[in-house]
Amino acid sequence: MFSPVKSTKVYEQVIEQFKTMIADGTLKKGDRLPSERELVSQLGVSRASIREALSALQMIGFVEARHGEGNFIRENFEESLIDPFLLIFMLNGSNKEQILELRRIIEVETAAIAAEKINNEEIEKLEECLNGLLEAQDEVLKGKYDKEFHYNIAKASKNILIVNMLNAVSSLMDAFITEARGKILMVEGNKDVLMNQHSALLKALKNHDPKAASKAMREHLDLIFEYIKDR
Amino acid sequence: MFSPVKSTKVYEQVIEQFKTMIADGTLKKGDRLPSERELVSQLGVSRASIREALSALQMIGFVEARHGEGNFIRENFEESLIDPFLLIFMLNGSNKEQILELRRIIEVETAAIAAEKINNEEIEKLEECLNGLLEAQDEVLKGKYDKEFHYNIAKASKNILIVNMLNAVSSLMDAFITEARGKILMVEGNKDVLMNQHSALLKALKNHDPKAASKAMREHLDLIFEYIKDR
Repeated sequence: MFSPVKSTKVYEQVIEQFKTMIADGTLKKGDRLPSERELVSQLGVSRASIREALSALQMIGFVEARHGEGNFIRENFEESLIDPFLLIFMLNGSNKEQILELRRIIEVETAAIAAEKINNEEIEKLEECLNGLLEAQDEVLKGKYDKEFHYNIAKASKNILIVNMLNAVSSLMDAFITEARGKILMVEGNKDVLMNQHSALLKALKNHDPKAASKAMREHLDLIFEYIKDR
Repeated sequence: MFSPVKSTKVYEQVIEQFKTMIADGTLKKGDRLPSERELVSQLGVSRASIREALSALQMIGFVEARHGEGNFIRENFEESLIDPFLLIFMLNGSNKEQILELRRIIEVETAAIAAEKINNEEIEKLEECLNGLLEAQDEVLKGKYDKEFHYNIAKASKNILIVNMLNAVSSLMDAFITEARGKILMVEGNKDVLMNQHSALLKALKNHDPKAASKAMREHLDLIFEYIKDR
């Protein structure tokens, strides 16, 4: 039997060459790429194909164009899943519950891992976030500290894949979170509940207690779920 | 104070227009895009810029070029996180443990959600996978049924974000999984252990028992973890 011949476009072949060079370590984080002109001559393809390949690699946050300096492999990939995730979300008519469900899945277990691996410096950062959250006067600033608190827990897991994943999920949630905070805070007494939940989480992390950390995270996200879902 | 002016490339502006049309519902799954020539005239930009935008959107699996038919918005996004994930993995020097850690995080909780939402048709599919796994003679075919079994559990969660996420993670793991299966099966008695773990998982799902499903999944992945990690 014959199998269908897949036509590969020129820019796709260029991308494959980049991938190979990354896989074998020839290209590393922060490396400057050859100029477009050099790439044209090294790869023997048109400038248009080079540009198509570069724009595709920029789209997934892998290559960064610095004005007047050329193209570089990024140092930081924390944002590279956001666009793909956003498009999946929009085109599938996914809903808020599905995002929060994914976030809960990741964060509950991540809190347990963080409890095992967190160090003193990371605990201090979380304390700063919590103080900021307590003292901030406006909702925008409070939201910022809240987000930083969760981000730093993910970072304490020391797993960059988890951090990237959560970044994409929480960037999807951003619009809802502010809205949810508003709804939650309208209910008498909830301000203290939220604060206590964050404190319980921090305490569990300080005690390096994975079970208590998961439990605290689950209770916290369950409360948010209650207010975020369509009712 | 002035803030830095961010130069936006033409192709990025084209992508923004696509995003807006997706967000407001003008562009939907499966839609055929206007031809390159039409896009040039509608957007008033060069053909090169249109092609750069299209290659970027293809890279994240959002647009699909069908030979002789033109460009379409994809129907299925199950592969759109694979490339971004692969590059993050390679460039960060992430290791096997980090992938399996992320997989365990997602799958343990997903098994619980699936236990709540699974229907009879989905249970039948899982039974077929398990029979295939039992009867298959070679390791490649066994590996295929194993993967399908896990994929169908994720699908039973009815959350497309979870399915996409797991697809990306397991495509990263593919190389290791076959290797791990080999190592596991070299140990006397492990073949039955693996089979029993899959059966226990299926039983918990059939009983719509979230706790038992998580537990069975955790035990299963813990065993794989044991054999996959660098020793």
